[in-house]
Amino acid sequence: MNYKTVYTILNNDLKKIENELEYVLDAHSQLLKESSLHYLQAGGKRIRPVFVLLSAKFGNYNFQIVKDVAVSLELIHMASLIHDDVIDDAYTRRGRPTVKAKWDNKISMYTGDYILARALEIITSLNNVEAHKILSKTMVELSIGEIEQIRDKYNFEQTITNYFRRIKRKTALLIAASCQLGGIAADVPRDVHIKLAKFGYYAGMAFQITDDILDFTSTEAKLGKPAGEDLLQGNITLPVLLAIKNPDVKSQIEKVNEYMDSDELSAIIELIKNTGAINKAMQISNLYLQKANQVLNDLPPNPTKKLLGTMLKFIGKRNF
Amino acid sequence: MNYKTVYTILNNDLKKIENELEYVLDAHSQLLKESSLHYLQAGGKRIRPVFVLLSAKFGNYNFQIVKDVAVSLELIHMASLIHDDVIDDAYTRRGRPTVKAKWDNKISMYTGDYILARALEIITSLNNVEAHKILSKTMVELSIGEIEQIRDKYNFEQTITNYFRRIKRKTALLIAASCQLGGIAADVPRDVHIKLAKFGYYAGMAFQITDDILDFTSTEAKLGKPAGEDLLQGNITLPVLLAIKNPDVKSQIEKVNEYMDSDELSAIIELIKNTGAINKAMQISNLYLQKANQVLNDLPPNPTKKLLGTMLKFIGKRNF
Repeated sequence: MNYKTVYTILNNDLKKIENELEYVLDAHSQLLKESSLHYLQAGGKRIRPVFVLLSAKFGNYNFQIVKDVAVSLELIHMASLIHDDVIDDAYTRRGRPTVKAKWDNKISMYTGDYILARALEIITSLNNVEAHKILSKTMVELSIGEIEQIRDKYNFEQTITNYFRRIKRKTALLIAASCQLGGIAADVPRDVHIKLAKFGYYAGMAFQITDDILDFTSTEAKLGKPAGEDLLQGNITLPVLLAIKNPDVKSQIEKVNEYMDSDELSAIIELIKNTGAINKAMQISNLYLQKANQVLNDLPPNPTKKLLGTMLKFIGKRNF
Repeated sequence: MNYKTVYTILNNDLKKIENELEYVLDAHSQLLKESSLHYLQAGGKRIRPVFVLLSAKFGNYNFQIVKDVAVSLELIHMASLIHDDVIDDAYTRRGRPTVKAKWDNKISMYTGDYILARALEIITSLNNVEAHKILSKTMVELSIGEIEQIRDKYNFEQTITNYFRRIKRKTALLIAASCQLGGIAADVPRDVHIKLAKFGYYAGMAFQITDDILDFTSTEAKLGKPAGEDLLQGNITLPVLLAIKNPDVKSQIEKVNEYMDSDELSAIIELIKNTGAINKAMQISNLYLQKANQVLNDLPPNPTKKLLGTMLKFIGKRNF
């Protein structure tokens, strides 16, 4: 089975979730609609809804309830993407802060705020205080992760532990919450939704590591952004941290800056690849996937386990 | 009794809330601490905590529980102020988007996100799903209000109804939520917390109208910002909407723009004052205060009613 089969099996429900996302974002002012549908229509793997749906299959799967959790988590993810882009956008129009540019950015920021608020409103249909506790804790960690990412930009002295803590906050905990809340929405026993959270955490760590690898190994066509973009913007990811263990490589990579041209950047990317850092990072991702698999084995017997296992394989092998 | 007496009566609890706010914002990274304490230390009337505390006195006042509601609501207010300032700040350093300036703004945006997430986390201690429903709905309305404010900037064709809807979303609903959640935290009966919400809504409308009047009648020293600043930034408030009913006045006021010098602005402010718009706006504020008083009369007998009445008088007469 490959991941496409999982998406095919979930197809009906994912389609309804897609419609619901569009409906939620379509319901208010024209300004809000334009800026938020822009993100929605850019698509995405909808990995969080997928994990919500699969996790809910461990309990009493009631789509009307589970749907709200899936929509809410995708909206939170979307809001965080919008906030990621706000200030960067401001500076692509560098030197010319027209009133229009200024408003666009304000609108993006408030669109993010709006989407986040809608996400919180939608999940209240669960009538479950624990869900709010999990979600609000996740959001606190997410925002700390964002701030740490800014703090750690272009910092080549940061440790690998630092990187792991950051991706935990920025990615893994939201995927963990997707799995756990999917389970809670389906009334699974406590020990099961705690295991689902653990599964999601390990899967999320691997997901982010492969994302960070793809920044070096994939192509602009597949990524929707130029290769090496993370490094160019000063986001120091696992392949870089592994590569700069070699002091000669480090002294080269430290030269990276926003104004570097694409040939210089390509040379740096090649340098990183030649150190074997990509393979080492993949091994680390695989260790997380193994841990996720162990948790999966430990979950109660259920045909969905095979689908979650397939998603883990997809995370390990994906090239987009 | 004047409002100072109310603050004196609540002094012990307000102090603890102040410490708690500082503690919440102090607990994480240095960057977060600096940017959020900046706002905290700017002070403020803490009107939302005051309303939370007073409303809770209609039920079983347990400070440990009520405190979390008060802290949460003040944090939401603070987060919205931070987001209000983010993009404007970016442009005070116009033309020179240094890396530092860029980071500061990103950090402000994420500080707002962080504070909001902490607010949500703190209020989960209530263990009450209805509280989340009220709060998330309020946050949705608040973000729509922010976007409407941007949309309506420099729009002299907007109706007064438009203005009322906007200040309802931007201010009144959060004060309504403060009163209602204060009541819920103290386990008041449903009909009581619905009345508290109504009281807070009317009080909040009057509060915002007086705020908008003060922009014209107060001084820079008292406001902490130059008089006429709202108008200069294109925020069309009630006094302006009343003044421009006169077409001659309208044609003058329509000339307002960001680059106007302070003499020109002073002349416009005088013009608005001379139309009697300030007095009319005050009358409208007083109508809301009367409605708030009616709801207050309708609440169960309680010594706190006198304190809430005093707060209404403060809202009507305040000059800061």
